[in-house]
Amino acid sequence: MREVAIIGIGQTPVDEHWDKSLKELAGEAIFAALNDAGRETAEAMYIGNMLSGILSKQENLGALISDWIGLPGMEAEKVEAACGSGAAAFRAGLIAVSSEDVESALVVGVEKMTESLPIETTEALATAADADYEAAQGLSFVAINALVMQLYLHTYGWKHTDFAPFSINSHANALHNPYARLHEAITQKDYLNARMVAAPINLLDASPTGDGAAAVLLVPADSLSTLSRLVIKVVGSASATDSIAIHSRKDPIWLTAAEKSARRAYEQARVGPQEIDFFELHDAFSIMSVLSLEACGFAERGKGPTLGLDGEITVKGRIPITTRGGLKARGHPVGATGVYQIVEAVQQLRGEAAPTQVEGARIGMAQNIGGSGATIITHILKAE
Amino acid sequence: MREVAIIGIGQTPVDEHWDKSLKELAGEAIFAALNDAGRETAEAMYIGNMLSGILSKQENLGALISDWIGLPGMEAEKVEAACGSGAAAFRAGLIAVSSEDVESALVVGVEKMTESLPIETTEALATAADADYEAAQGLSFVAINALVMQLYLHTYGWKHTDFAPFSINSHANALHNPYARLHEAITQKDYLNARMVAAPINLLDASPTGDGAAAVLLVPADSLSTLSRLVIKVVGSASATDSIAIHSRKDPIWLTAAEKSARRAYEQARVGPQEIDFFELHDAFSIMSVLSLEACGFAERGKGPTLGLDGEITVKGRIPITTRGGLKARGHPVGATGVYQIVEAVQQLRGEAAPTQVEGARIGMAQNIGGSGATIITHILKAE
Repeated sequence: MREVAIIGIGQTPVDEHWDKSLKELAGEAIFAALNDAGRETAEAMYIGNMLSGILSKQENLGALISDWIGLPGMEAEKVEAACGSGAAAFRAGLIAVSSEDVESALVVGVEKMTESLPIETTEALATAADADYEAAQGLSFVAINALVMQLYLHTYGWKHTDFAPFSINSHANALHNPYARLHEAITQKDYLNARMVAAPINLLDASPTGDGAAAVLLVPADSLSTLSRLVIKVVGSASATDSIAIHSRKDPIWLTAAEKSARRAYEQARVGPQEIDFFELHDAFSIMSVLSLEACGFAERGKGPTLGLDGEITVKGRIPITTRGGLKARGHPVGATGVYQIVEAVQQLRGEAAPTQVEGARIGMAQNIGGSGATIITHILKAE
Repeated sequence: MREVAIIGIGQTPVDEHWDKSLKELAGEAIFAALNDAGRETAEAMYIGNMLSGILSKQENLGALISDWIGLPGMEAEKVEAACGSGAAAFRAGLIAVSSEDVESALVVGVEKMTESLPIETTEALATAADADYEAAQGLSFVAINALVMQLYLHTYGWKHTDFAPFSINSHANALHNPYARLHEAITQKDYLNARMVAAPINLLDASPTGDGAAAVLLVPADSLSTLSRLVIKVVGSASATDSIAIHSRKDPIWLTAAEKSARRAYEQARVGPQEIDFFELHDAFSIMSVLSLEACGFAERGKGPTLGLDGEITVKGRIPITTRGGLKARGHPVGATGVYQIVEAVQQLRGEAAPTQVEGARIGMAQNIGGSGATIITHILKAE
């Protein structure tokens, strides 16, 4: 296996893009990534997407998008792991380049969600859960996460209000990200007064969906001149699963798959949580921020909320998270999210994230989750 | 890159499996492959599937299936390239093992199609085509292939009846395959009298869909004892795309992506068409057999039907095709088909395909197509 570097990044704003189709969004992000890298093409493309078949009646995205961007002929395919599709596609591209099978790989995450009726989107998102034992019983995706949060509050004795810092932090960081879906600072009072969605999850615990695409270009690290600017390498990559239905898990408030994939990524990168300068985690719901921080070794079991209450998750804190707004405020175009996280991590490592730049950021971690902790993919990037 | 070997194969019959869900079908094929290999587990799993989101309201198949087979925790993801999903997943598993990222990979192709209404399946299959410019205009998938066949007949002056040998051959071979969907020999007269579907494609030009799963287990070739039985290696693997809509192609009756991916696979395997002992091609429609044979160098442009008329495609012929029944008679559970082809190629190379065994088969090729020639993936296997 050879080392792989990210030499180009691109993204569209996460928004309701009424004037842009799925392929147009993907193309916009891809061209931005190619331009950023100073390249015109790539050998293969890996597409992270969850819902195109259901919501856009379009599969075969590999052929569709390579055709649309004027590169018909290239190898291209879609990789799906529910809301973890973006990181799964990134990992596929990474392995293809590291295996020497291809010399350059585009990875694009794309999702088009807002053209459908909300009930259609809710039903489509429920395909991430167990169709027989969860969705068929009427459990929507937010309802599953509400059960998890309720159990967490009950088990460890936290109050709902203790989760406010996570949402406030994401909104504060998104204010400075032109690609974010939400540009509005929120306060503790806003959080407390937000409309209930599925108790205890209220509107400010939950991330908004959206249309969007993000892309990166991967090449072998040894193909880059040592005289060139900073090289961003992928030094850790691992994926793990857990039972798809939460009731099958021994401990529904512990992300076993996050722990497994993070541990493997740490080993590969030869670092531990203490060396991670920032963590782009999967805050689809505020409870997931807490569970991710605990499973990845940043907080003791049951103590995750402390990091928020102590201000350690802000860009000036001990472990800055969701530095560009996270899912909560940048938005969560589900199959694209994992690639947005990588793009944002590269911005931090390049020092292009002012005014939410993490000072001296050299090692960043990104973690993308498919289903309610069912598929979890962790990447560690390093600037050299 | 290290060499990769296939050490286990498994499959379910292609059928209407009213008593088995998608995950049960997948599990049956996986356990058969593990048993065949004498193994109990694998490090990662790559799932070829096209329609689970639309027809079964279930995505996140990686977590679902690893959980179901009692191996929650393993890395697992779905790969989608329309009807080429099976080979795309196989290629993903192959690259993962060859890259040294994993030491063993399960690949399973699975599709559950017959529980839905025929109109739902037809609409779902149309997601392989261009949603904006083909499907939205009312072009079903069979209608697209009918246009291609009509143009081929017109351009080269063949008659519809000249395609009969392809369907007759597939049905004859399937008679001896217990996993095939159709076990009925057909005659020239049956072919001529078959009910029209979309002129000139009649019922005996078209493959039946079905429920089914096929699986293989991949490991590094150098991990196998040289004293062990025959080693089946993957010596060529390549994927290419073409424009998704047929009207965008310069030549709609030439499979550019088949030519590209086959050429690359030949180069990797250091063979040419003359060294291929049999060819498991993608006969979703009889016209596709002809186009595949031409694009891969087995017949001159416009001369493909000759191979059928001269008896060269039977197991005793110069280039035996669809030796276990092909899509036409083994059946076409779309996202699973590419893995069925690999399983059948391994049966031939092991000498386990009597009475349709190709004598002395040592090098076999399998080619899987997503959309109407839009994504084409070619593999070459060799027994050593």
